[in-house]
Amino acid sequence: MTIEEQALLLSGDGWWATHGVERLGLPPIALSDGPHGLRKVRRNDSAGAEGSVPSTCFPTASALAATWNVDLLREVGAALGREAQAVDVQVLLGPGINIKRSPLGGRNFEYFSEDPVLAGRAAAAYIEGVQGEGVGTSLKHFAVNSQEDERMATSSDLDLRTLHEIYLPAFEIAVTEARPWTIMSSYNLVNGTYASENAYLLTDVLRRDWGFDGLVVSDWGGINDRVAGVAAGNDLEMPGSGDYNRKKIIAAVEEGRLSKPALARAATEVAALILRAVAGRRPDATFDVEAHHALARRAGAEAIVLLKNDDHVLPIASDKQVALIGAFATTPRYQGAGSSMVNPTQSSNAADELAAIVGDARLSYASGYDAEGETTDALVAEAVQRAEGADLAVIFAGLPDSYESEGFDRRSIDMPPGHVRLIEAVSARQPNVVVVLLNGSAVSMPWASRVKGIVEAWLGGQAGGGAIADVLTGRANPSGKLAETFPASLEQTPTFPNFPGRAGHAVYGEGVFVGYRYYDAKRIEPLFPFGFGLSYTQFAYEAIRTSTMRFDADRDGAVTVEVDVRNIGKVAGKEVVQLYAHERAPVVARPVNELRAFKKVALEPGEQKTVRFTLSRRDFAYYDAAQEAWAVRTGTFEVRAGGSSRDLPLVAAIDVSAAQTRTKPLSRRSLVGEFKRVPGGEALYVELVRALGFGALLSTDDEASMTPDEIVAIRKARMATFAFIDDMPAIKVCAFSHGALSEARLDAMLELARKGLAI
Amino acid sequence: MTIEEQALLLSGDGWWATHGVERLGLPPIALSDGPHGLRKVRRNDSAGAEGSVPSTCFPTASALAATWNVDLLREVGAALGREAQAVDVQVLLGPGINIKRSPLGGRNFEYFSEDPVLAGRAAAAYIEGVQGEGVGTSLKHFAVNSQEDERMATSSDLDLRTLHEIYLPAFEIAVTEARPWTIMSSYNLVNGTYASENAYLLTDVLRRDWGFDGLVVSDWGGINDRVAGVAAGNDLEMPGSGDYNRKKIIAAVEEGRLSKPALARAATEVAALILRAVAGRRPDATFDVEAHHALARRAGAEAIVLLKNDDHVLPIASDKQVALIGAFATTPRYQGAGSSMVNPTQSSNAADELAAIVGDARLSYASGYDAEGETTDALVAEAVQRAEGADLAVIFAGLPDSYESEGFDRRSIDMPPGHVRLIEAVSARQPNVVVVLLNGSAVSMPWASRVKGIVEAWLGGQAGGGAIADVLTGRANPSGKLAETFPASLEQTPTFPNFPGRAGHAVYGEGVFVGYRYYDAKRIEPLFPFGFGLSYTQFAYEAIRTSTMRFDADRDGAVTVEVDVRNIGKVAGKEVVQLYAHERAPVVARPVNELRAFKKVALEPGEQKTVRFTLSRRDFAYYDAAQEAWAVRTGTFEVRAGGSSRDLPLVAAIDVSAAQTRTKPLSRRSLVGEFKRVPGGEALYVELVRALGFGALLSTDDEASMTPDEIVAIRKARMATFAFIDDMPAIKVCAFSHGALSEARLDAMLELARKGLAI
Repeated sequence: MTIEEQALLLSGDGWWATHGVERLGLPPIALSDGPHGLRKVRRNDSAGAEGSVPSTCFPTASALAATWNVDLLREVGAALGREAQAVDVQVLLGPGINIKRSPLGGRNFEYFSEDPVLAGRAAAAYIEGVQGEGVGTSLKHFAVNSQEDERMATSSDLDLRTLHEIYLPAFEIAVTEARPWTIMSSYNLVNGTYASENAYLLTDVLRRDWGFDGLVVSDWGGINDRVAGVAAGNDLEMPGSGDYNRKKIIAAVEEGRLSKPALARAATEVAALILRAVAGRRPDATFDVEAHHALARRAGAEAIVLLKNDDHVLPIASDKQVALIGAFATTPRYQGAGSSMVNPTQSSNAADELAAIVGDARLSYASGYDAEGETTDALVAEAVQRAEGADLAVIFAGLPDSYESEGFDRRSIDMPPGHVRLIEAVSARQPNVVVVLLNGSAVSMPWASRVKGIVEAWLGGQAGGGAIADVLTGRANPSGKLAETFPASLEQTPTFPNFPGRAGHAVYGEGVFVGYRYYDAKRIEPLFPFGFGLSYTQFAYEAIRTSTMRFDADRDGAVTVEVDVRNIGKVAGKEVVQLYAHERAPVVARPVNELRAFKKVALEPGEQKTVRFTLSRRDFAYYDAAQEAWAVRTGTFEVRAGGSSRDLPLVAAIDVSAAQTRTKPLSRRSLVGEFKRVPGGEALYVELVRALGFGALLSTDDEASMTPDEIVAIRKARMATFAFIDDMPAIKVCAFSHGALSEARLDAMLELARKGLAI
Repeated sequence: MTIEEQALLLSGDGWWATHGVERLGLPPIALSDGPHGLRKVRRNDSAGAEGSVPSTCFPTASALAATWNVDLLREVGAALGREAQAVDVQVLLGPGINIKRSPLGGRNFEYFSEDPVLAGRAAAAYIEGVQGEGVGTSLKHFAVNSQEDERMATSSDLDLRTLHEIYLPAFEIAVTEARPWTIMSSYNLVNGTYASENAYLLTDVLRRDWGFDGLVVSDWGGINDRVAGVAAGNDLEMPGSGDYNRKKIIAAVEEGRLSKPALARAATEVAALILRAVAGRRPDATFDVEAHHALARRAGAEAIVLLKNDDHVLPIASDKQVALIGAFATTPRYQGAGSSMVNPTQSSNAADELAAIVGDARLSYASGYDAEGETTDALVAEAVQRAEGADLAVIFAGLPDSYESEGFDRRSIDMPPGHVRLIEAVSARQPNVVVVLLNGSAVSMPWASRVKGIVEAWLGGQAGGGAIADVLTGRANPSGKLAETFPASLEQTPTFPNFPGRAGHAVYGEGVFVGYRYYDAKRIEPLFPFGFGLSYTQFAYEAIRTSTMRFDADRDGAVTVEVDVRNIGKVAGKEVVQLYAHERAPVVARPVNELRAFKKVALEPGEQKTVRFTLSRRDFAYYDAAQEAWAVRTGTFEVRAGGSSRDLPLVAAIDVSAAQTRTKPLSRRSLVGEFKRVPGGEALYVELVRALGFGALLSTDDEASMTPDEIVAIRKARMATFAFIDDMPAIKVCAFSHGALSEARLDAMLELARKGLAI
């Protein structure tokens, strides 16, 4: 390919297609927004405001993650792949897997979880599903894009450990397990460098460490300095910029500011993607609209999390009169706004779907509030009247469209005052109240104690109405679990009041203590914890077994954990068995519990199953930023199993052993105290201490001639002085000693230490 | 001066003196550690481990701050100045004013407060006192040095707003009000650049913005790259490095890597300091050892904070038999370890001092624990026996030496288990227990509800024993108030569990929500709040008046606030009247209350006084990082007055008005949405939106022909699209439009906007 052809490939043709190179038989290919439904826009030169081709709107990511069912996610992915084939789209722009750092994140509804393992496994299954149909995915947004406000101008500032433990693993799991065709770099900066020109992320971590072999595409408008982006590993610019950046790339190559191999590498990735897409293309593909709607309904039902069910108010008994209250019962909110907005093939609402199951005669209805969630005395009065006339009131509430969207963050976790007022008014007059919530992320529930039932139905997609009807009537037994903590108040959330970051910087100061990791460490009681969800049946955790009680992290490949769980209730149901790791006495501050594995199992009444998990070295490790490596410390770990992050009845201890982590070689900037910790380093340490003029402190012989008071005083002074010495970068000893320790001698000492010849 | 002479001046001669230049009549001058007593070491070439000249050990900074008495701080400063003169020291290395970000900070005992106004005013008074005696001070450690672990290798990473609102104002107050002769740059890095070579801090902020006209000295061993340090504004390297760095400076000047003016500027600062010191020198100075001990006792008593006093258990009634329990009663801990450790002129302990007041016959004693705070069954049994044989038990407890020191951070806020066990055992058998605490920073008190009295006596200096005796017997009425929040648990502290920062980075992720600002915002109940402290009398806050109810922040110079406070008890006492500002509806996340002013007043029984405060623009402002300026928003503020941050009974509202903050000129990186907010910018905004291809969205006329559902859909799309457009850096429009908006046209638009000619 010529330089010009290569440069041409590096930018899209319009909004939704790549360029091709006819001379080489490379056709252009089409990309389309997702992730929970195809948003194939009608014209390639537009952002899609004028509508898009109808496609199935599945539940959004926050709902899909709440299923904790990777097989179901794979099924949904496959359906999306078939729909993409049917409209000749070669790459679906999803899944979105950014970590939910705050419930205020405007795009949380498009993301899976606050936990990287859950997000990663959900993404991997989704990708396998889509790509199994010959359609590519774009894993997004890479990386640390957990804020919407000023997202194109804000740097996510975080330490290396937090980056590697929280914000990268979901990408790592998805990349290494499911090999997405593309990954999308994010809008934001990471520690001061745009993600789209961040060589550490796009090349060192993604390609070198994880072995990613696909293409990196910018988020739409995410390119800042195109030449720097190509050099860093960002292959494709979207949307296309005509010849605007093409000229800059060519000029940079001609002037030697961009290497030809770098350009060729990026162009080759685009060509390779095109070839992959061509090979996967199924020209006459169609999809079964009704079957996909049914799948959306099944997924929607399995996503529903039953948060409260006092007195077995649910499922609704067949002899009850039911008042349906709230406009969401008839005009539900079932997806979010922004690039993920789908033009559905059909829609549904809970009122109609319930009527189809139980008949109109058992139902009454009052709208309760308007499109913005505002209510009036008259609307409230009508709702109360309907509720009083029934055996049970089901109130539909949650968040209106204007409360959450791509592009801006939420200001509050509160529902509209009108919704809250309605719930309070109705529950004051009707003892049997169930609240069904339609929302993309956590909300506060100051009314929670006043109602008997709470059903979290998320943004359930086009078949969400049927899904709700299935759960309320018991046709589906709810089995969703929270993939994000529901806080009791905004004040108690990890980032309050510093979210979103302002003036160009989002300081990720909570570190690795995101989501349940924060609530557990700070001993804060949330409203509903991560992993929590009720069922119409009950499960008993009966036993846990490990394949060994001693695990050598360096030699043993894996430890197997088996958990026995039984359905001790009267109806069939599914349980999400969750496995967390806990280190008893960590040397660094670690989360109390970290999700390491999970599995959803279906159980008939009385049935017991054994769930088997495999843990490896990484499951016991933390990221040691000083060494830039995953480290395991010898010590006792517990594996804890149960049905929620706060309900882990089964515990097994494992004594983990590990050799010293590989340590980075000593350098001039290593601290003096570090010399003591390398083989034979004691002599070097003594030399440094002597050069500093503190050699006398190395001996404690002098205490023999001292009074007790003098000994106390000298020890106190010694303690502080060694704290001073040990924390000093070694190079400073040269200045302290007026050069008596020369820089050359220090370098020689470092060489000795590196060779293990220090003695 | 020659280049060589200049370079010579830039590094010390040994540990504790500058060089002089004999040819020019510039003598060397002496510097000595402080800050709460002189640590004049006997030999200039040593770090002082072999002891120092005796001098008065005053209470440490955390105690002095708890007096909230700036006049007393000035008195202590003057005494320190006289002692420095007596031993021929020209610069005293103090005060230390770093903000207490976590109670785990190892050096908190050497610092004043978690609040910048209190720390700044305390420092200013101290400096005035010292410098009034012709001796210089060194305000330290500049800046953001709130961690001891790996302090020479850790970057304090924080946003500009937090830097300016929390970590700089104490320095700003001290520099602008008291003009210290020198300021000491800190060991750590700030946002990746060593403080000792940080031009933003040392030149832009310190000299340009604050008008500092003194010398910047490195912390001892704080120099990293000496040449970069000189260029950035770090004048004097300490301790001296012989010719090691001198050669590097000369080479850098010769090679043009360091400008001659930069070198000359630094050398001139050293010369100016020497001249100042020479002028201040009082060759035959002496000081009154006994008077200074008495001052230390008075300061120690006024620093004591009475935290609890149920049933008026204190002061000790004159007919009571008292059991003194705990080794601290006879061998108190009264100062910390590290560079601040003083060789006292004399010492005291509470047992002897109490005996001197009430007589031996009323006292018994049991040691209870050893030097490390460990106890035994026998020691506990003895203590319980003594307690049972008395009317009242006074238990001395707190932190042993090994628990807090310069050089490392604490791992816990707990007292030794032995101390806790002792308190629990004694309080189980004796209902009248008073605990006297000797510690440099906050501790947990799981036993607080079991005792009647809690007396926080800090590290009270060499006369601390007498100070405690004075308070326990009522000879002194306690009037100290907490200068730092006492948390109920480590978990609830702002930085938990991310303190200290590791692997080179301390992320200041709590932002401006440090100390009480955090507890208030998060609605967390601490053990004892900032500003809290009891007295043997009671005070009534009777009235608050403001000079105006409307304050124009741009035009009006000041608003005056008057607070009437009365002693409604039976004994004379002192009250710290505290004034906080609260903004009712801030546009950015602001602390609930921020201390703006305070005053300590002495009141006879029944006496009322009016305390007068003056507030100005800055007292209502926050730091707008995007504009890099202090900003005031029009809105209603409250000034709240009372005796603790959580007890502010008097409130006055003030309507503050302010013109728009000065805004930084628009740039290529300004967000598209920002164009709407400049005069005449609407037309430019429209041009940008059209160039992006979204011009059609600017009109809503099309809704007339739509169905309601279509209108909802289009509005939802429009909301997300404008969020996308408005947050896009303007330069990106060029690429989006394929260059149809050229970079030249964008620059022309920016020029129009800057000139206000946009229309």
